[in-house]
Amino acid sequence: MKKDDCIFCKIANGEIPSNTVYEDERFRAILDLSPAVKGHTLIIPKDHFDDLLSASDEVLSDAVKLAKKIGNGVKEALGCDGINVVQNNGEAAGQTVHHLHIHIIPRYADGEKIVTWPQLTSDPEEQAKIAASIAGKL
Amino acid sequence: MKKDDCIFCKIANGEIPSNTVYEDERFRAILDLSPAVKGHTLIIPKDHFDDLLSASDEVLSDAVKLAKKIGNGVKEALGCDGINVVQNNGEAAGQTVHHLHIHIIPRYADGEKIVTWPQLTSDPEEQAKIAASIAGKL
Repeated sequence: MKKDDCIFCKIANGEIPSNTVYEDERFRAILDLSPAVKGHTLIIPKDHFDDLLSASDEVLSDAVKLAKKIGNGVKEALGCDGINVVQNNGEAAGQTVHHLHIHIIPRYADGEKIVTWPQLTSDPEEQAKIAASIAGKL
Repeated sequence: MKKDDCIFCKIANGEIPSNTVYEDERFRAILDLSPAVKGHTLIIPKDHFDDLLSASDEVLSDAVKLAKKIGNGVKEALGCDGINVVQNNGEAAGQTVHHLHIHIIPRYADGEKIVTWPQLTSDPEEQAKIAASIAGKL
């Protein structure tokens, strides 16, 4: 199902041109127009889902297998040393287009440290409480 | 299949204790000991795979469905505004434990901007060449 006025619906379905690296019946993979690094690729389903949290299990299952395929293809084509697979849910998480997409980001041993985060010290008692609160919602 | 001397094999299989938020026959989800933010959760398969690029399609399919479940549970339990789903392949990509794991990172609208990257300008001709080189490896 497509959503009106969703730019990734239009790109995935070929209504807006893109640098396509892969296409099948249900997905298109394209180069990000504003890449973190050369070869930064996006996997976009043709059906509309806002994000991973609301996507169908079927599309997620196919998407992650495609992430493996594209990730290996990017690595082979570009000779990069590593790959970040990133998927953002919500503006607070840096999602700018609200149509599910998976970032495949090439990384180099001598390259810039992109996609990093702080590593905080955790308090054991607090961790136990947080774990219980999450477990209670599953 | 477990791998000797892999700490995540031991944690996933319960030989080393952890703050477990979820467990089933094939996966364990735990709180990261050095979290980017409180509630930072890791999904770890009990079988050993170095990373996503070399994992079985079956474990990836189950892992991404679990990422959806855990992501929604974390969001509900903590009341965060967004979720980053991140999976790193290779040291160059920031992978420190070489056993497949998926990071579920809570994000807040007024929180620190973690998990971000530069957005470069791309050259159309170069993009077309890169897309063709990746497509050629798929």
